[in-house]
Order: sequence, then structure tokens, then C-alpha cells
Amino acid sequence: MTGKDGGADLVPIGNTPIVILVRPQLGENIGTVARAMANGGLFHLRLVAPRDGWPQSIAWRASSGADRLLDNAQIFETVEDAVADLHHVFATCPRPRHIIKPLLTARGGALEMREMTNRDLNVGILFGPERTGLENDDFAHTDYWIRYPLDPRFMSLNLAQAVMIMAYEWWMATEQTPQRQLQTNGTHIANKGELENFMSHLVKELDHCGFLRNEQKRPGMVRNLRHFFQRGEVTDQELRTLHGIVSELVRGPKKDN
Amino acid sequence: MTGKDGGADLVPIGNTPIVILVRPQLGENIGTVARAMANGGLFHLRLVAPRDGWPQSIAWRASSGADRLLDNAQIFETVEDAVADLHHVFATCPRPRHIIKPLLTARGGALEMREMTNRDLNVGILFGPERTGLENDDFAHTDYWIRYPLDPRFMSLNLAQAVMIMAYEWWMATEQTPQRQLQTNGTHIANKGELENFMSHLVKELDHCGFLRNEQKRPGMVRNLRHFFQRGEVTDQELRTLHGIVSELVRGPKKDN
Repeated sequence: MTGKDGGADLVPIGNTPIVILVRPQLGENIGTVARAMANGGLFHLRLVAPRDGWPQSIAWRASSGADRLLDNAQIFETVEDAVADLHHVFATCPRPRHIIKPLLTARGGALEMREMTNRDLNVGILFGPERTGLENDDFAHTDYWIRYPLDPRFMSLNLAQAVMIMAYEWWMATEQTPQRQLQTNGTHIANKGELENFMSHLVKELDHCGFLRNEQKRPGMVRNLRHFFQRGEVTDQELRTLHGIVSELVRGPKKDN
Repeated sequence: MTGKDGGADLVPIGNTPIVILVRPQLGENIGTVARAMANGGLFHLRLVAPRDGWPQSIAWRASSGADRLLDNAQIFETVEDAVADLHHVFATCPRPRHIIKPLLTARGGALEMREMTNRDLNVGILFGPERTGLENDDFAHTDYWIRYPLDPRFMSLNLAQAVMIMAYEWWMATEQTPQRQLQTNGTHIANKGELENFMSHLVKELDHCGFLRNEQKRPGMVRNLRHFFQRGEVTDQELRTLHGIVSELVRGPKKDN
């Protein structure tokens, strides 16, 4: 679902982390950040001294409908002002620095944030300017640093991509979808009895047409066929189709063919 | 690290999944997809019938240095041709469809892909065109579908963002970085003895200046101070600084102030 529903359900600050873009350079990136936030259920955007001022119409054009996040974005002059009402501040920090600080993965950070917001604490995440990243004075306002595990040979991450990974992990931290399921819709996975019905049908016709005439090889051939048809999960609907195929092949060509 | 190193270490097809963009519309997106792939350690890009032909210089400009992936991109006329040498084909599928198919999360899909590539099977992931997504005929060439858990109120995902999440989970599937660690660099976390040294110093001076003169409240006040200084982890270097602060405060103002 796209469109204006994106940031529709604004929630109290304490319930979701606030994304804080520090001195963002490109309005387009502010828009794509808003879109990525909406994907992962983040609703609160703060901007510290955006280079080209605010509002910038290009941000709305780039947000693919996450307008409400941009409409409600709050502007601050300094990082200090932007974090004043927060209890814990995270920052993404791609490069090692010689400072004593808890260092988290994106996944670990998301779990910590969930624990904090569950305690009604206000949480923010700082993302630095596109080219230069956060400065030492920005980092001094932070409690936790997050470094994404990514290929160390190519760590250059677009601003919206950085927000996307964090928003995705925020969403995943409480996601219950099983990692694997079979989409069955109206049908169901065939049970062993249904599969055996088909095997009996098939083997009867194969005996009849002579495919299994070698008595010595017959048991092994039937076993191998059973292994093949059992390798994946088969639905009852697909078994009906297979029954039909066997029957039609036996019946031979229609008169009018 | 950015620059031309991006796709430098090309690996055999069997070792990493191949990203297959089906009828991509925008050359810029092909470039940002290459960048996202490089972030997550994916090296092989295939393009099926890119709308504006190939090569497109805008893709190289948008790739932030992941040039080698684009230089080595393979072009195909049809999905059938693009998957002919693969053993398993995944597809991202944002909307439910009435087809029986194993449905995975991005995380679950990444784990399955790791198992397959470990068995030297060739794996591909299809991503559909920006606006319309994959068609039914494309899906018929696939074995597994992946649906990202994201906020159902805002599922619209940019093509490069979709690739970013998949590449990130591919990388995370074997990532060993602990979710939380304390970056200590040259110093170390103070042990209880070092902390106690400081507490003794502090309490001695607080006794001396009269801050703890209330005998009845003194034990509780000392306990509370100990609780405060123990709440977070303190380094030995920070303890030295605290020792210095107490000593200097006791000594009073310098003559020349």
C-alpha cells in the first residue's frame, strides 16, 4: 500500500525512535529517508540545520507518499537542541574512533531501542551529513554507536540506505512472521494417503502399458518414482492434475487430433 | 572504504547469489542497485531487457564506485535465458498471489541461499521493474518467494532499497560481530579495586570538607555515591581524571585566577 497513508498514524514520541538528520545536504535524500522510515514504522523526523533550508519541495517529491513525516518534521539549529528532550541518543558510526562507547550492530541497536521505548524513554538516532559524517562534537551528545556489519571492502552507504537498514531492523525486532512458510491458499498439502492413491493409479497404468515389465527392476523403479514424487510438497490440487495427465495419456489422442 | 575496489574481488558464480533485474526502467536505479550489492558482498548482476538499453552512463555515475559490478553485468533478452544456468531462483514478491510456493522472509531467504551456495548450487534473485513488479510469466521461473516484513501501511520500496535489504541479510547470515560490545581502545574497564581507590579518595575529601558531616545520613550518602559511580562502566583513564578533579577542587583556585 502506498500513498498518503504513509505517516498517517503518528504515535507519541516515546514509542518510536526519532530519526535525526544532522546537517543533511540534499533535499532529495531527506525525502528518500522519510520513505525508508515509513517502510520500517518510524514516524518522527528531526532536521538539524539542513544545508539548503526547509521546507524543500524536492523532499516531498522524493518521498513517494511519506508526506506526513515531512509535514511534521521538526527543525533545530544544533544537535544539542535536537536531543534535549531525549533520554538516549544513538549514532551511526561507520569508522572506528578512539572513544569509549558501547558499540552495537544495527540488529543489537534495534533491540536496545525496543527495550528503551517499552520503558517510555525517548530515543533518537543521529545520521551525519552525506559526505563528511558526524563530527566529534556531534558524537559527544550520543550514548551508543551503531556500526552496520557490511562488506568491509565497500562500506560507502547512501543516507537513505543507512536509514533503511536501521528502520528495517527496528521493524524486525518485533516481527513474528515465520522465516519460511508454504503459501497454500485454497488448497492443502497432500498427505501420504492421497499421494499413495496417485502412486497406485500411476503404477497400475505403468504395469498395463508395459513400462514396468522388467520384474527384477520393477521394485526399485517404483521406489525411485515414489522418491521423486515425494521430494517436494505436493498439493491435493496438483495430485488431481497428475491423475488427469495419467488418465488422458492412457486414453490416447482424441479423434479430432 | 569506497572507490573502485567495490566489485574488485569477483568470485565464482556458485559462491554468491546473482541479482537479476528484470526489465529495469531507470539506469540510475541500476547504479544504486550495484552500490547496494557491493555493500552486502554480492558481485554478480544480470539485466533482463533494460528499458533504455545497455550500457547507460548514468548507472556508473550512480554506483559510487561499484563500477566492476556494472562492467561485468550480463544482459539477457528473457528471464528464461537469465536463469538457464541457475539451480534455484528466488523472487521478491511484495503482494500475496494465489500460487503454491515457499514464502520466506528476507532473513529466512538469506539463510536458504547460504545453504545452497555452500553446496555449490547457482542461485539467483529476481527483482521486478520499478512500477509494475514481476509478471506471472516471470514468477513461473522461480522456486522461492521472498516477502520482506515491513510496515504494512507503507510497503512501497525503492528498487535499490529492496536489493539493499536482501544484500544486508545475505551478509548478516554469516556475520559474527557481537550485537553489543564496549569499544575500549587503549584503556580498560576499571575493576572494583580501582573504583574503590577513587571512592576512598572522594569520601576522605568529602569528610574533610564537611559534606558528610551528618553522621546519621553519612552511610546512606556514601552508598548512593557508590551506586552512581558504578552505574555505567568506567575506564581506568576516566578514574584518573576523576581523581584529578577531586584533588584540584580541594586545592582551590590558582593564585593567578
